[in-house]
Amino acid sequence: MSEYNPPRGMRDLLESEAELYEYLFSEFRDTARRHGFEPIITPTVEYFSLFEAKSGEEIKRSMYVFEDKSGRLLALRPEVTASVVRAYLKSMRGRPKPIRLYYTAQCFRYEEPQYARYREFWQGGLEIIGDPDVNADILVAFTASEFLNRIQVKHVYEVGNVATYRVFMSKLGVNEEKQDYILHLIDKGKIDDALIKLEEVVGDKVELFKELISLNDLSKVEEIVNDYKNLLGEQYDLVLSEHERLKNFIGVLKELGFEAKYQPRLVRGLAYYTGLIFEYKLSGAEESPSIGGGGRYDGLTSIYGGPYEYSTGLALGIDRIALSMLSKYKPPSTRKIALILVGNAQLTLGYSILRTITKNLDIEVQGFVYKPRSLSRGLEYCNKVGVDLAIIIGEKELKENSVVVKNMKTGEQVKTSVDSVLDQVLLMLS
Amino acid sequence: MSEYNPPRGMRDLLESEAELYEYLFSEFRDTARRHGFEPIITPTVEYFSLFEAKSGEEIKRSMYVFEDKSGRLLALRPEVTASVVRAYLKSMRGRPKPIRLYYTAQCFRYEEPQYARYREFWQGGLEIIGDPDVNADILVAFTASEFLNRIQVKHVYEVGNVATYRVFMSKLGVNEEKQDYILHLIDKGKIDDALIKLEEVVGDKVELFKELISLNDLSKVEEIVNDYKNLLGEQYDLVLSEHERLKNFIGVLKELGFEAKYQPRLVRGLAYYTGLIFEYKLSGAEESPSIGGGGRYDGLTSIYGGPYEYSTGLALGIDRIALSMLSKYKPPSTRKIALILVGNAQLTLGYSILRTITKNLDIEVQGFVYKPRSLSRGLEYCNKVGVDLAIIIGEKELKENSVVVKNMKTGEQVKTSVDSVLDQVLLMLS
Repeated sequence: MSEYNPPRGMRDLLESEAELYEYLFSEFRDTARRHGFEPIITPTVEYFSLFEAKSGEEIKRSMYVFEDKSGRLLALRPEVTASVVRAYLKSMRGRPKPIRLYYTAQCFRYEEPQYARYREFWQGGLEIIGDPDVNADILVAFTASEFLNRIQVKHVYEVGNVATYRVFMSKLGVNEEKQDYILHLIDKGKIDDALIKLEEVVGDKVELFKELISLNDLSKVEEIVNDYKNLLGEQYDLVLSEHERLKNFIGVLKELGFEAKYQPRLVRGLAYYTGLIFEYKLSGAEESPSIGGGGRYDGLTSIYGGPYEYSTGLALGIDRIALSMLSKYKPPSTRKIALILVGNAQLTLGYSILRTITKNLDIEVQGFVYKPRSLSRGLEYCNKVGVDLAIIIGEKELKENSVVVKNMKTGEQVKTSVDSVLDQVLLMLS
Repeated sequence: MSEYNPPRGMRDLLESEAELYEYLFSEFRDTARRHGFEPIITPTVEYFSLFEAKSGEEIKRSMYVFEDKSGRLLALRPEVTASVVRAYLKSMRGRPKPIRLYYTAQCFRYEEPQYARYREFWQGGLEIIGDPDVNADILVAFTASEFLNRIQVKHVYEVGNVATYRVFMSKLGVNEEKQDYILHLIDKGKIDDALIKLEEVVGDKVELFKELISLNDLSKVEEIVNDYKNLLGEQYDLVLSEHERLKNFIGVLKELGFEAKYQPRLVRGLAYYTGLIFEYKLSGAEESPSIGGGGRYDGLTSIYGGPYEYSTGLALGIDRIALSMLSKYKPPSTRKIALILVGNAQLTLGYSILRTITKNLDIEVQGFVYKPRSLSRGLEYCNKVGVDLAIIIGEKELKENSVVVKNMKTGEQVKTSVDSVLDQVLLMLS
């Protein structure tokens, strides 16, 4: 175990970084609950077959996979949506829909570590199962944005629509596997490679895709869809309604004060998206990696052999969000109180006072009992770890039933009776 | 994926069970923070070698182990203390000691699933590094007990001391590997087998162990230690001071109102314990499996090649605690508000009202926007999921700039202007 490192690409989160993560988890959960989402906790490990179906090429290649004692393949989850859908099919089919769920969970990706890209990473996610309306897409997005606003992370939505690409490709004879691959290339920014692959199948109709992929103007996209109404046939309505969903989604988010724009090159790496998709970028850092994303995954339930359900959801990358906040993050200002026991002073008394303080102080306080080798060592420790008040419980004072309360910032110290410690602490903390 | 099951021995936590887990995590973290512990988040995956050193035979045999791309063995963590010690050695050596840390984390154990014993299970843990005083043992125990009291789980401490057994065995020529095995047998309740193994090495001195293992009276243990002062030699002081720690620990816990008793058969399954050890049992269920435990692991840092540090800690089994509470647990009574959009009513208006409500209501509230296919379907859904108030936003009412607030429990409904929705909601919730 050279140098006590965790496994390559993984990290220990300590001190203010660990505090920041716990703060983000807690704010995320609280925001999700307030918006009608309920928690779900799925296993960290799943059968590999769960992810094989529809997780996208890149994710499949970069999973941690290993064998079960009975020879079945297991995988560390690369994402949580597949597990949520599995859990829905197993246990939640009979519930009134829509079902709103949230999770915070670590996921795993077995690839070369890069800056802000870890092999173990944390996601906060929202899912709605059983609602076809664009309102469900907006509810997950609104909830995520309210969370990001609460933690003061300014963000921009980039919004796309894979339905248009998929339907056009299908109609022009591109099979699903090739579609996934072409969308994967676009996702990686390899537009030219994607167009070459497309041209191999669709010939000069590749011009249509060239145009779609470069258009930022939504009304122009509508014109193209109308021009190709005959080609689209019975799928025309679907493409139009997904386009309508996209326009609504962007429109409502903007009206609610969020930044949102159409991004025709957005397709996302997960193969299960069927229509609307979106990503979060930090404001002013649109060229940087996204801090999360989501979209429609209608019918993923039926790919897993269950009934068809409409579904939508998103996941935020807690690590990237934490990274963007770390330099300015200040943990909540909790007052620290140390109860220092000197000599043979009774431990029990220290804990009784500690209990009185933690139970009766309204302000947020951290208190602990410490029995150092000497008083001076105890006070030195208090200074180093930023203790606000030290309550010194010494044998001599105890004979008079009193203790000393010392303000570690000002040096002021007051002798007080054991019964009035709480009042003295309140006085000196205010 | 037959029947959509998670991997064998693992579970989906849903609805009130998921709520209960989140409640337990949150109360545990909050109690730990209030008592001066800070968070640490270590990787779910570690190098196998980390656990190989000192985790105990049983744990080693039941780990999930798999290979890294560069051929190194990885393991899903079976417990968190080894990771905390590794992280200490890597990043925290320079910090003022004692260091108080807490975690909540899932761990893994690859064995036949039994009742309340899962292959993925959750622990809440506390560790103190760098404090030799019994006060450190008491601080972790006190904090855990305050947590258990807060969630109303009545519990009993069973307290033991592996130092006495280990020193006597060493002095009588039992090597460390054999010691681990004998303690493992005692841990499994196989006292006779343990004594036979001992007899093979120590001959008729086995009578000493027979006596130690059957004594509940601490002063008798002291007599034996004194009778064997010559045999113990330079280790006599260590044994006596660990015995003193045990007495103090039990004494202070009792004075603080907790139940605690000496249990000579308690040795615990982890090979890294060096002295004081303890387990938590549910009150009135002392024969049932423990809900947690801990003890001294002085010097584990030096087994990993670092400097010697005093350390103590404990872990609570969240799954067993949850199981004991599940039948009586009631999630916090949050009021549910649904904003129902009918016809072409504006989504944006729904979200504006939702924002007003979540931002301005002091009571805990869950609110969400829902656009059902029809109003009757929307109200039916509200009834099924236990909504308290439905705010119905319909086209007709909107022409008069008003909405309808409906109490779903009483059926009472009131038309109100958009601007006074908040007041109306407050009125109807109070």
